[in-house]
Amino acid sequence: MTTLSFLLEQAREYEHQLPPMPEMPPPPAGAAIASWIDHTLLKATATAAQIRQLCQEARQYQFATVCVNPAYVSLATELLQNSPVGVCSVISFPLGAHSPEQKAAEARAAIVDGAREIDMVLNIGALKGGDYPLVYEDIQAVAEACHRNNAHLKVIIENAYLERYEKILACLLSREAGADYVKTSTGFAPSGATTEDVALMRRVVGPALGVKAAGGIRTLESARAMIAAGASRIGASAGVKIVEEASKN
Amino acid sequence: MTTLSFLLEQAREYEHQLPPMPEMPPPPAGAAIASWIDHTLLKATATAAQIRQLCQEARQYQFATVCVNPAYVSLATELLQNSPVGVCSVISFPLGAHSPEQKAAEARAAIVDGAREIDMVLNIGALKGGDYPLVYEDIQAVAEACHRNNAHLKVIIENAYLERYEKILACLLSREAGADYVKTSTGFAPSGATTEDVALMRRVVGPALGVKAAGGIRTLESARAMIAAGASRIGASAGVKIVEEASKN
Repeated sequence: MTTLSFLLEQAREYEHQLPPMPEMPPPPAGAAIASWIDHTLLKATATAAQIRQLCQEARQYQFATVCVNPAYVSLATELLQNSPVGVCSVISFPLGAHSPEQKAAEARAAIVDGAREIDMVLNIGALKGGDYPLVYEDIQAVAEACHRNNAHLKVIIENAYLERYEKILACLLSREAGADYVKTSTGFAPSGATTEDVALMRRVVGPALGVKAAGGIRTLESARAMIAAGASRIGASAGVKIVEEASKN
Repeated sequence: MTTLSFLLEQAREYEHQLPPMPEMPPPPAGAAIASWIDHTLLKATATAAQIRQLCQEARQYQFATVCVNPAYVSLATELLQNSPVGVCSVISFPLGAHSPEQKAAEARAAIVDGAREIDMVLNIGALKGGDYPLVYEDIQAVAEACHRNNAHLKVIIENAYLERYEKILACLLSREAGADYVKTSTGFAPSGATTEDVALMRRVVGPALGVKAAGGIRTLESARAMIAAGASRIGASAGVKIVEEASKN
């Protein structure tokens, strides 16, 4: 990758001086916030009955997607036929410790099952260890699998484990490798989304990419703070509560 | 599966009265305990340098295996050539929420990369939701992938999330579906191995299967307690400390 040294240099510059906050479209008013929310259930213990309920709620409130584990993509796709709600599958979740080929294969299988959005975890160990070509290759392999099949890719950078320089570099590598979104957190690390991280990610990726805030967002106030900081998508299991609150004010 | 109703019945019986504790071979003396330990590093942040150190320690202390995420199976296999130490890969880890086909494919890929032991997470959501045929099919698919390729299968039942009846049934389904071991925990759930769970698992599966205790075992005392309760394998990141202690007394 000829651009890697340029990206490393750019990350160093951004570490000292971030680009300005880009101007973003106004946030959705009232209950329309639902169209910015991935209605999420990723617990190991999630049953088919709980996924059915998730999909019924998603249809009712018109969330952007339901975000589920790979085992439930087929079921969710079936339940959401003839609705505007998409199905989002997590990939290499929540540890990110698969090879590029394994992640691409897992993404392809989820897309065959009906996923149209893919939330992959980047190779955190490779990033921590300084193997940036592998981090890039990993994202690029999944991006190709997604874009060949009209699916969108979100890259979970898992800020909880990253230094400021690594957060910036993860965003630059994601953008360069073809991600459609960068995403703050899996929800399985010691900390989740923060407005500081969302703002940093938005300033680094600019206005063209999406920024998804996820992990610990349980109220309308918190969702709105993330959007004000630059998020264009919210991942939450509390989506119903958030939309109910939003339709009241 | 014609035997499912029989297994459900057996689990109900065992819930009231477990089979007696089988007689087990004596535990390894002194530093030989290393041959009962899977030397483990599964953190999302694990770097290649840390995996190199793990493998060097495994070679030095002669652990049973190194237990790593799929991304590192190739590297560990290369580093452990011409040693008695095997490579163990986790599969569908730590949530267990993949389809049988996805788990079997992930296992096959890890075996091609050099894994000779596979620690899969069972479909916890299916177990909690009462979809026992799926739990069975899931294990059976991975067992077949393993046994066709001379690899051993351990099934992680993740006791933290299970009721007593579910623990018993998970062990019976694992044995029936071809598992070589049952394993207590991923280490990523709210609680890890307990001697009570290990004893229950040993009494349910009998003497022929392995029982692996993993999650929170950080001392020789704890490892020995697990073995006394019926464990035949220990998963730990503190293996070096445990063997050092064992060689002193």
